[in-house]
Formats: sequence, structure tokens, C-alpha cells
Amino acid sequence: MSYSTMTKEELLQLREQLAAEYEETKGLGLNLSMARGKPSKEQLDLSMPMLNIIDQNTPMVGEDGMDFRNYGVLSGIKEAKRLFAELLDVKPENIVIYGSASLMLMYDTISRAFIRGILGSTPWSKLDKVKFLCPVPGYDRHFTICEFFGIEMINIPMDENGPDMDMIEELVSTDPAVKGVWCVPMYSNPTGIVYSDEVVRRFAALKPAAEDFRIYWDNAYCIHHLYAEPEKQGKLLNIVKECEKNGNEDMVYEFCSTSKITFAGAGISAVATSKKNVEDIVSMMNAQIISHDKLNQLRHVMFLPNVEALNAHMMKHADIMRPKFEAVLEMLDKELGDAGIASWTRPLGGYFISFDAMEGCAKRIVEMCKNVGIVMTGAGATYPYGKDPHDSNIRIAPSFPSEKELVDACRIFIICVKIASIDKILETK
Amino acid sequence: MSYSTMTKEELLQLREQLAAEYEETKGLGLNLSMARGKPSKEQLDLSMPMLNIIDQNTPMVGEDGMDFRNYGVLSGIKEAKRLFAELLDVKPENIVIYGSASLMLMYDTISRAFIRGILGSTPWSKLDKVKFLCPVPGYDRHFTICEFFGIEMINIPMDENGPDMDMIEELVSTDPAVKGVWCVPMYSNPTGIVYSDEVVRRFAALKPAAEDFRIYWDNAYCIHHLYAEPEKQGKLLNIVKECEKNGNEDMVYEFCSTSKITFAGAGISAVATSKKNVEDIVSMMNAQIISHDKLNQLRHVMFLPNVEALNAHMMKHADIMRPKFEAVLEMLDKELGDAGIASWTRPLGGYFISFDAMEGCAKRIVEMCKNVGIVMTGAGATYPYGKDPHDSNIRIAPSFPSEKELVDACRIFIICVKIASIDKILETK
Repeated sequence: MSYSTMTKEELLQLREQLAAEYEETKGLGLNLSMARGKPSKEQLDLSMPMLNIIDQNTPMVGEDGMDFRNYGVLSGIKEAKRLFAELLDVKPENIVIYGSASLMLMYDTISRAFIRGILGSTPWSKLDKVKFLCPVPGYDRHFTICEFFGIEMINIPMDENGPDMDMIEELVSTDPAVKGVWCVPMYSNPTGIVYSDEVVRRFAALKPAAEDFRIYWDNAYCIHHLYAEPEKQGKLLNIVKECEKNGNEDMVYEFCSTSKITFAGAGISAVATSKKNVEDIVSMMNAQIISHDKLNQLRHVMFLPNVEALNAHMMKHADIMRPKFEAVLEMLDKELGDAGIASWTRPLGGYFISFDAMEGCAKRIVEMCKNVGIVMTGAGATYPYGKDPHDSNIRIAPSFPSEKELVDACRIFIICVKIASIDKILETK
Repeated sequence: MSYSTMTKEELLQLREQLAAEYEETKGLGLNLSMARGKPSKEQLDLSMPMLNIIDQNTPMVGEDGMDFRNYGVLSGIKEAKRLFAELLDVKPENIVIYGSASLMLMYDTISRAFIRGILGSTPWSKLDKVKFLCPVPGYDRHFTICEFFGIEMINIPMDENGPDMDMIEELVSTDPAVKGVWCVPMYSNPTGIVYSDEVVRRFAALKPAAEDFRIYWDNAYCIHHLYAEPEKQGKLLNIVKECEKNGNEDMVYEFCSTSKITFAGAGISAVATSKKNVEDIVSMMNAQIISHDKLNQLRHVMFLPNVEALNAHMMKHADIMRPKFEAVLEMLDKELGDAGIASWTRPLGGYFISFDAMEGCAKRIVEMCKNVGIVMTGAGATYPYGKDPHDSNIRIAPSFPSEKELVDACRIFIICVKIASIDKILETK
């Protein structure tokens, strides 16, 4: 029943009942988190055989002719480049392998632009103003990087096909201070949508005013499907190839990592981009490091030698994740499906469900959850500067808790949503 | 016999003989390197048991209560902090653990100062001029970092006790643009000297004009002795404690890594500094990474749980390194000992022998070596901007080649030194 059609009395009565339920949860001493996109223990266990996959009998000299244990091979071992090249459908020479975190790779890419510039352009540290376009809701750590570098962020609305491309085309083509756009094109963080072919094509055809404008294409969830059936899997056009078709091959950095494939804290990461960009990146990396951990690169290619192996491995993740997503969605449908006080996404992959409460309710809901031991991502975190203009969006991360914990947490979350919504409605009654 | 006392005819005759020897080496098709401080295969083999020291039976939750495989524990696991704290004789709360390379840690430390400033001071990117003091000869990769950030480098002469402290005190106390000094205080790269107690005390008592002046204390070779006998081991005062005594606890960053303890390309690194600096570093790291590879931290503490284990392990390295250093020194002594055309250092640890040829000869010697397949560190590399004002210093790195290769390479190096020196002497005869 839609809350908006209920009378004040009905609402007050319901509120009383919900308040009692909320009070009860205080006694439970819960300490559950749906805050971060962390794999669960069961998911991490899937990669345990990788831990000792290299040992004293493993040949220590690879295709580059270098000892994996020693200094050298700055841009990553050939074996790992080939794996990421297959995964992202590019050539190995378009790949640079990085350390354990694609976040660091993204930060460092921006850092190098700030310190030295891209392909010889003016370093951003010498400019009065640098702007990034930020499709919202988006990934808080992207926004934190921008804040760190003093980059002004501009919100770009998103729908089920991706960001508002009219707005992006207009800003990118007219304002030379616009140097980048953040994208999570596949199972977007947090909405879970996949950019449509048309959106990808329009990205690839951008005509930027700034020569050092780049698309920061964070393909974090490129094979992170929840379902095995092809018709239930997102499909994303290859941005690197689309950019090439438009003569825009230098315009995109595509980021990727195994953080949510093997170990979240000990994976390997990569960027795919044009050969010119690869050379630019590698020449600047030379001041920072001699080589990233090649033994960990070797572990990964031995454990997951090709995309077939990657896909098979990811289906094991899916078998763990799918019931959790379905449990959350089932509860939301059942409890809130016809209340008319919230909407949420139904992703086919990735790590999040994006939940939109009534305007002005998100902070209160998250606060109420926190007070009874349920940690959600901070309200506002999915927007630049932590400012959700509607105070509405909440990111739900179902991966880390057990199914039992998830059901507990969700039950309480729903109580909080209902109470905050009733209070909101009552303001105008 | 001193070359300077030889007649022109004697020199010409000797030169002819050496030139014939040099020509002969061309036919050997050699391809040897004494260029970089790389551990040899035998040294890397010492740490092979570490590769599979963690496996499916290893508990995956550590003292921090977090899963080593997952995100989190930004500043490093407690177990690893304790190991580095014991090694550097500081408290665990003074330690931040980083990734596989202390070079990256040093670069990033300077990068953060450049982007955001140190403890709230003005970011260096906003200043017209930033200067670093560079004791010479020194480590080329330190200088590369400075060049990358556009930091002006000032040469500081060194003797067997360390850098010229009068000059450093004068510059640091009067020029607020001087923001740092690079030091390799123990078995210095390349001279192999250990800073004297007086030098360390004067460093710790500096009164900088700039609030964000820091000592960049790269203690890369802190336990890298060549000899087991205590009287043949360098001793270095604890800079962190000396700075504390002077109320200068924020003035130093001490860097350290296991690159030359376990695997050069896959070690772990750390910085020791004041609690205030630790907080500053960690708060800024938060924009860059969620956590460095904790599984590799775990591997290290399981393989080398304490300083006793570290020292025992390092003696195995010493047994491999010592004969190589002694072979080089013996050949230099025998062939050049009384020629009066060169001098060199006799380190008790570290990775290098520093060789000083006659003024104006270093580039030519390195070039001659290269033409017959012997790669030396580029002449000039031990000075900022690659400019050795005397064109005299050559860094010899004996670690990587086998003893047989090393003897071959040294023999040819000595021929080149002799030829270049004779030509130099003949210019004035």
C-alpha cells in the first residue's frame, strides 16, 4: 500500500509499531556492515590455491628473459600483459601492469598529469582550474582523488543507459578546463547499470577542447556477472577500439584489476590505452619504481591463465554473490515494493544495489542504522564532496556479510527507511 | 709504478700493449654488467622458502583482526610494523608499511609534499623554487625523483665521515627553499661509507629555515654487512632517536626495505618517522590506496620473524657478496695500487665500490667498457643531472655477475682505466 495514500492516523499507527521494532533491535548488539564492496571470506577462499602456486620448483625466468624475483620489467611481465589483453580485448602492447590496486594506478595517472602533464601538455599543477565530470551517483574513491588534487567536480546525471551524453559532449567540447570524466561503465558503482552501445560510441567520438582530456574508464567489474546465462549478463562495447575508430586512441585510459577476482588486498592491476599513452606512462613511472611485484603477476597468470579460466572462476564468485543480491532484492520488493517511498536498482553484476529514498531521508536512514549497529556507506558518499543534492541515494553492498547477517541488516534498514519516510510524509500532512 | 713518473716513451709503449689487449677483448663477445645494484641469482635463491610459506593452512586473520586477503589495514599489518620497528629500533607506531619498493615510498612522500604539503605547509607545487641538498657522489634514482618534480639540486661534498655538515647547516638554516636532503647513511651508495656519530648528531640538531624541511634518510643497507665480525661492521646512530632528543622528531623520514634482503622486485618497504608525520602520511595515503599487499607482508614476517632471523639471513648474503667485493678490490689493488691514476673505496657493506679515475676520464672509460660488452653505471650518474663536475666517479656494482664474469669484467675495466689515464697524462707531456 502506498504510504502517500494513507491517512495521518494510519501513518502514526504504523510509525508506532515500527518504532517498537526499531527499539527491539537495539538490544541485539548487532555489528554488521553493508558499507563497502568487500568480498566475503567464502569468495577469498576461492583463490587459496594461488597462495602457494609458485614454489621452489617454478622456473623463475619468464618470457622477458628476466628473473621474476629481481629488479626490472617496469611495465609488467609479458605473461600478465597477455592475460589482461585477452580480458580487455586489446593488444598486449596496449597494456601496463601495475601494483596491487587499480585505485593507486588511477591516482598515479592523475598525479603524473598534475606533476608533469600528459604527452607534454601543461602540468595541471600549473593551471588555475582543472575540472572533472562525475556521473552521479558514482564511486566515492574517484571523488576523493579529485578532492586530493583540488580538481573541481561537476555532477552529470545518469539513467539506465549511462551518463547524460548531451551534457558531457557540451562540457567536454567547450571547456578546456575539463580534463577528465570518471566512468564505471560495466555494473556501475553503485547503480549496477551497463553503459549502452550508443553511450560508449558517443564517448569514443568526443571532441574535447583540451588536448589532455581523458576518459577514466574504470572497468572494475568487467567480468563480474551474477548470472551464467548470456541473456542475463551485461555487454559493454570495447571503448579502446571505439576510440581507435574515431582517431581518438589517446583519449581513454581503461583500468582493471583482479581485486575482486582473486584477493581484494593483493591482486594485480592494469591499464589499457594507446601505445603513445603507454610510452608516456612508462617513461614517467621510471621515476617512481623499478618494477611492480612480478612474483604476484606470475601467481596470477599461473592460477588464471586465460579468460576461460577467469570466467569459470568468476562463476564461483557469482554462486556466492547471487543469493545475497536476490535476498536483498526480495526483501526490498516485499517490504517496500508498493509503498511508493523508495526505488532501487536490480543489477546483473558488480557489487552494489543503489537505493533511492525519499528526498531528504538518506542521511537520517544511515544514521538510524548506525545507531543500532548496521553500517551503511555514508549518505552522500556517492556524490562529489559527499553532497547528494537530494539526500536520497544510499549504496547497499551485500557482498561481505553472511546471508543470515544480510537478512538481519536488511530488515533493520527497511524499518529505518519506513520510519524516515513516514516522518517525511507527516511533515506535509 | 706511478704513471706520472714514467717517460712519454714508456707510456706510449705501455699504451700500445694495453691497446692490443683491449682489441683482443672485442673478439670475446662479452655481455656483462656491473651497472646496477642487483642481487645475484644465488642471493635470490636464499629466499625461495618464502614463496610458499603461506598456504591454505595459514590463519588468514592477523593481530589487526582483519583478513590479510581483503581490503583494509592501510598503514600495514601490526606483525610487519613490529619487525621494522625492531630493525630500526623505533616504536611500531612510528612505522608505516608500504608496497614492494622503498623507491616508490620515497617518490610518493615527495609527491604528497608537492601536491598537498607536509603537515599543512604550502604544497611545493605552489612555490617558485624548491631545493634539495644532494651529498655526492650519490644514488641516481634519488636525483631522478628530484628532476621529475623540478626540484633544484645542490651538490654537497662527502668525505669518509659523511656529507660536509658545515655546508648543510648553513644552507638549511638560512634558505627556506631548501626542503630536503638525501642521505644513504649506512654503506652509502656508492662510496660505502657510514656516517659518523658526529655527522648524525649534527643532522639531528639542524635548525631549518623551512618548517617542512625533512631529512630523507634512505637506510637501504642498514643490515647489509659484508663481514660477520662486529669490528668489521659499520655502526650507525639512530637518527629517529637523535632527532627526538633535539625536539626535531618531525624532521626525518627513515626509509627501509627488504628489496636486498628477500626479493629485489617483490619485497616490502617501510618508513619510520614521528607519530605526527605517520598520521600525516596515512591520512594522505587514504586517497591513493586502500591497503598495500598484506599477504606479502605476512610472507615476510613468517619467513623472517625478528632481527635475529634477519641477521642470520643477511650473513648468507654476505657469504655470497664478500668474495665478489674482495675479488674486485684485489684486482684494483694489484693493477692500479701504485699507478697513482685512481682511488677507490673499501666498503664493509652495501652494494657498491666507488671508483675515482683521473679528472676527465670517467665518461671515456665507461664508453670504452661499453664498446666491448661491459656495462658500467653511466659516468655522471652518481651526480645530480648526470653531471660529475670532475668526470671522475664510476660506480662499480659487483653483486650481479658471477665471480668468473666479475674477474673478466674487472680485467677489461682496468685496461680501459689505464688507457684513458695514459692518454690524459700524455696530453700534458
